[in-house]
Amino acid sequence: MHTDTRAFAAHPRASFDTAARSAVATDRSGYEPPTLPDAVVHAESVDDVVQALRLAHEHGLPVVPRGAGTGLAGGSSAHAGEIVLDVSRMNRIVGIDPVEMIAVVQPGVLNAEVNAAAAEHGLFYAPDPASTAICSIGGNIATNAGGMWCAKYGVTRESVLGLTVVLADGRILRTGRSTIKGVTGYDLNALFIGSEGTLGVVVEATLRLRPRPVRTETLAAYFPDVEAAGRAASAITAARIQPSILELMDGPTMDAVDQAEGTRHRELGGAFLLAQTDGFGAHLELDEIASAISPYATTVHRAADPEEAAALVKARRDAIPALEKLGRVSIGDIAVPRNRLADAFAGLEEIGSRTGTRIFSVAHAADGNLHPMIVVDPEESITSGPAKAALADMFHLAQRLGGTLTGEHGVGILKREWVGEELGATSVEIQRALKSALDPTGILNPGKAI
Amino acid sequence: MHTDTRAFAAHPRASFDTAARSAVATDRSGYEPPTLPDAVVHAESVDDVVQALRLAHEHGLPVVPRGAGTGLAGGSSAHAGEIVLDVSRMNRIVGIDPVEMIAVVQPGVLNAEVNAAAAEHGLFYAPDPASTAICSIGGNIATNAGGMWCAKYGVTRESVLGLTVVLADGRILRTGRSTIKGVTGYDLNALFIGSEGTLGVVVEATLRLRPRPVRTETLAAYFPDVEAAGRAASAITAARIQPSILELMDGPTMDAVDQAEGTRHRELGGAFLLAQTDGFGAHLELDEIASAISPYATTVHRAADPEEAAALVKARRDAIPALEKLGRVSIGDIAVPRNRLADAFAGLEEIGSRTGTRIFSVAHAADGNLHPMIVVDPEESITSGPAKAALADMFHLAQRLGGTLTGEHGVGILKREWVGEELGATSVEIQRALKSALDPTGILNPGKAI
Repeated sequence: MHTDTRAFAAHPRASFDTAARSAVATDRSGYEPPTLPDAVVHAESVDDVVQALRLAHEHGLPVVPRGAGTGLAGGSSAHAGEIVLDVSRMNRIVGIDPVEMIAVVQPGVLNAEVNAAAAEHGLFYAPDPASTAICSIGGNIATNAGGMWCAKYGVTRESVLGLTVVLADGRILRTGRSTIKGVTGYDLNALFIGSEGTLGVVVEATLRLRPRPVRTETLAAYFPDVEAAGRAASAITAARIQPSILELMDGPTMDAVDQAEGTRHRELGGAFLLAQTDGFGAHLELDEIASAISPYATTVHRAADPEEAAALVKARRDAIPALEKLGRVSIGDIAVPRNRLADAFAGLEEIGSRTGTRIFSVAHAADGNLHPMIVVDPEESITSGPAKAALADMFHLAQRLGGTLTGEHGVGILKREWVGEELGATSVEIQRALKSALDPTGILNPGKAI
Repeated sequence: MHTDTRAFAAHPRASFDTAARSAVATDRSGYEPPTLPDAVVHAESVDDVVQALRLAHEHGLPVVPRGAGTGLAGGSSAHAGEIVLDVSRMNRIVGIDPVEMIAVVQPGVLNAEVNAAAAEHGLFYAPDPASTAICSIGGNIATNAGGMWCAKYGVTRESVLGLTVVLADGRILRTGRSTIKGVTGYDLNALFIGSEGTLGVVVEATLRLRPRPVRTETLAAYFPDVEAAGRAASAITAARIQPSILELMDGPTMDAVDQAEGTRHRELGGAFLLAQTDGFGAHLELDEIASAISPYATTVHRAADPEEAAALVKARRDAIPALEKLGRVSIGDIAVPRNRLADAFAGLEEIGSRTGTRIFSVAHAADGNLHPMIVVDPEESITSGPAKAALADMFHLAQRLGGTLTGEHGVGILKREWVGEELGATSVEIQRALKSALDPTGILNPGKAI
């Protein structure tokens, strides 16, 4: 691949300014590329994206699509020789159809903005990453993002009905439809969702909204240790209850949140479980959860009102920012079978001891999706040394428990080396064949995801 | 493509017998291929499938994968020069993990068998086509099948966690995983689901089971006409209620069911709506449904007990068999935005008058998915003349209302000619590129789906 990125001088939204390039060089993963990208295109329209990809196609230049830059795996990081295609200025909600319960949005719209607009019609958008206030729909689609409500409502794939995608050569492709069901042709929607910018650039999405639950009930439970909390979470699954939120936080993370927020969760136990139910029978369903976890919990506290419930949800949502105050954070994202949560926590403790790293863990417990976060000193590397060793060990722990490398953050650049081990040779060959079919010259986000 | 299908004499499960070939020549769509396939392989193991595809690959022979043969679009129909690869004897439930709520099954297992086995553990498998008693999981996956419970629990795609697929050249590919979440690599699961046997042959599937609801409530409502019932169904969606089942049946279909089953639904109205809610607040949610539809209904009847509820569900489930007693049936499968149901019914009535065909309609109303069924005399064709004209008109009606050609049955052979019109040229090119990437010599179910 030659790198005559001066060709992008022809693009009206291109910038070669050092500050501009520096601002888009990486994401929130803690990964630091060795060099800056050659240029950044601040696209404001579909035409800007088309023109950027036509230029890239014509000159064989690598392009790194970028949304809000809140990724946690280095998926939108870029280096010398690459052009960043930033769509964060394409941030309009094109329309909401409250009767049909769909929203049409541009990729740069923030997740929380979609939810605020939907709320005006008594609706919500289910995928709700902890970063909802700062992450964009385009990035959510690129990673097939999850969040807390996935426990009941599924991940991004289950809430995207249709996409407009600009392909590697600048052609425009429409995938999916506006109806709830439809099976004409292959499921191109799902192929692009989670493809981390390696197959095309999403420029518009038709999202499925859902009715806001008529009733929501919330409880917080505290446990002697994280294994007990893990067993409690598995007991909820085993009791056939479907919480809308089931979040677990370990003691060290509770300490960090308490310190950042001025709360006092840690006084009540060594692990924290947040459970929410919704729907017409939410109160009855929460009773069942309380029963299922009571053999393990030291304290079970039901939120008295929506304000208290919101404060409990906020505690979990603020875990990552709280840890970022302690140092540089490398965020793991393993998923394991739901009844192996306690084993996963035990394994993480062992990894922390062995590698000499500080590991803080939260989990979307109903899905078996853990975020073990390695915190190192600000000047330390997260891509080599103990942090790297711990990340590798986490992957092998997940694999041993029948799980996966990444539940919802994506592979990006930080987890590439374990992809082959997880997927196997035939799957990697097929993935590469699909990549070649859609991006024959390999200009879209090279070196990421697969 | 040459057709030296004698090469299959080398396969231990191949049969060239006329009766055997005749038994696998078509499905339940009413489509009659002009000739018989050259041979059928009754695979009993993964190895049998591998060997069949290796032979086909080596000799460039077209293969038509087949499950239970209950498809409704001619997707598993075969003709001279083709080999049918029948997996219906691979019909074992490999295992159920009741704690993790997953089932591992072979493709020939019937949908109802999975549900019977799951029920022993207090679980269920959500996709439930009307043909549950006779359709296989492999076919469900090939068409991304839906059913009644999709209203709340999603279609086949949302209930398949992983697949083992034999590729066109005989290689074995594993897609997905056993965990609920996971984003390593592209979503190959979704690519194979709904691909109608054109990309690979599924030989094992890991299915997601769900807890059986603690409580289920059912009502039947009757309306003066189908437009009123369509408006009532849209009113439920607009009232932000999530039924687990919402099925609509028009007057002519009610007549056919009454005649076949000895029931008397038609006496109560000109259209029938079946609504079910589930969960801890099912009774409260059904109250809301009753309120939302009461302005439109002439009778609203709540089922007194599970037996009565089951009889109401059976009435809807038996609609297709009831119509098959009246003649040859061509089953439409359009989906429209949920608030356009009444318009769709009005349009169908108009199509019936204009083409001189008898159209009977049922609908998965919560998803906007209609099954308008054209019934012709047994000796009449469904692939030419008025039946064909009506099918074309239905597609254009769906398109005019912002909908799609097929909601859950697939394109097969009967709807191929409208695929390009719905998807557009770029999408068709991309679909073909994906097909070529996975089946470069085009031996898998040629001429179907895309």
